[in-house]
Amino acid sequence: MNIGIVGLGLIGGCLGLDLRAQGLSVFGVGRREDTCLRAMELGVVDTASVDLALMSQADLIFVCTPLGAIRSTVAQMIPHLKPDAIVTDVGSVKASVVESVSPLWPHFVAGHPMAGKAESGIEVAERGLFVDKPYVITPTEHTSAAAVEQVANVARLLQARIYQCGPEEHDRAVAWISHLPVMISSSLIGSCLSEPDHHVLQLAQNLASTGFKDTSRVGGGNPELGLMMATYNRDELLRSLLVYRGQLDRVIGYIEDKNWQDLELFLQQNSAERPKFL
Amino acid sequence: MNIGIVGLGLIGGCLGLDLRAQGLSVFGVGRREDTCLRAMELGVVDTASVDLALMSQADLIFVCTPLGAIRSTVAQMIPHLKPDAIVTDVGSVKASVVESVSPLWPHFVAGHPMAGKAESGIEVAERGLFVDKPYVITPTEHTSAAAVEQVANVARLLQARIYQCGPEEHDRAVAWISHLPVMISSSLIGSCLSEPDHHVLQLAQNLASTGFKDTSRVGGGNPELGLMMATYNRDELLRSLLVYRGQLDRVIGYIEDKNWQDLELFLQQNSAERPKFL
Repeated sequence: MNIGIVGLGLIGGCLGLDLRAQGLSVFGVGRREDTCLRAMELGVVDTASVDLALMSQADLIFVCTPLGAIRSTVAQMIPHLKPDAIVTDVGSVKASVVESVSPLWPHFVAGHPMAGKAESGIEVAERGLFVDKPYVITPTEHTSAAAVEQVANVARLLQARIYQCGPEEHDRAVAWISHLPVMISSSLIGSCLSEPDHHVLQLAQNLASTGFKDTSRVGGGNPELGLMMATYNRDELLRSLLVYRGQLDRVIGYIEDKNWQDLELFLQQNSAERPKFL
Repeated sequence: MNIGIVGLGLIGGCLGLDLRAQGLSVFGVGRREDTCLRAMELGVVDTASVDLALMSQADLIFVCTPLGAIRSTVAQMIPHLKPDAIVTDVGSVKASVVESVSPLWPHFVAGHPMAGKAESGIEVAERGLFVDKPYVITPTEHTSAAAVEQVANVARLLQARIYQCGPEEHDRAVAWISHLPVMISSSLIGSCLSEPDHHVLQLAQNLASTGFKDTSRVGGGNPELGLMMATYNRDELLRSLLVYRGQLDRVIGYIEDKNWQDLELFLQQNSAERPKFL
């Protein structure tokens, strides 16, 4: 089976390294000539080109572009594809991708390998990035079981933990554990910055330790990623934010009412349940 | 100078180890005989007793009890103290301590060494816990400069970074960087748990990774500590929570209005300012 990778960044690069190491032939398409050359130098692909016609060689194609480019990339690729070629993506939001890409190609299987690094780009690609990480496949009722199985087989080669669910379930789950935390965390930083007393703000900055550091970490990440989450997963993120505001209002109410018993119960329950997420 | 330590837990134990290593004599008072014996075995103190009369030996006394016991401990200690003995505490909230303890003893200097460990108790006491950690001293206009200087001198022996500010400023700053994050973080866990679809909740638990782990960490801590923050620093915590809710409402509004430009600006500013807290 020949693998195609469109988009030679961190994820595309890591896929190429791992799958070539498994003996598969990997064909890559990048936007720039120099990225294509670098991908061959680094051993990420066997052959690379800026021309999507190269995908005529591939049986299973990973679209590793940013979310906003997935649909147009698939549309441009179609004239070159083998009739039975399976197309999958690695986007971090699934319902909008499934909705826009499924009508274009009958063998499209949406997926989300949940691994990453702080840095991006092909230069930081490495082997084993997906080992023991979730790989979510989100078929619809129209997706062929055989195509799903092909994608799952490759995810197994990557030694990922495979999950299968509907695209909406995926988007709701990642809103809770990935997209909501970014907004919560950024709002913490924004709140501190709004302290009007400069002396207190400076003191807070001097006293901040691991608690603040951890809680604010994802809010200190790439703003473009946060924006992408909000635009592509708007409905589920909004839903989670409104539930979150309700929880926050509970806490505020307990403290206003000096209802220490219920506040303690709230803190106890959440603390006790956290290990289920780890 | 003889040091007194009342309350032989983690903080008291670490103070004893460090100050004895500096050649000072350390007298400790614990609540239980076996803690006193263990403190002597571990080299935390030169002499230990359950009797506060031992504090008649001390020139500078650290009250290392829980916040709720500081006032009564000082009151019981007074009959035994040298007339010039300096009393300080290590409580994590300062305005309420200053208000209740200052009238009891003329040489009281409130303080907060900001160091800790996940575990508590004298068994996990270690040398060097305070090195390069903040040590906040919060005198009032009535506190003698000489007494403040004595406490600062000991903090210097611990190699801590010394800050001096009013008790209210301290409480406002720690609300931002320590107490608010606990409530934010606990509310994140509580929100996820309120997901009504069991399948989605389980998926979220399976997919949760470092982003969720870090943002929820302090919410997964000791519920008694969170409760203590809320009860003793109620006004400042409430104030910070209300500001935080305002920030969250801004984010919700941007997403509801699809105001991606302002959302991006919000995320950018917070991300850019975070390093000032690290």
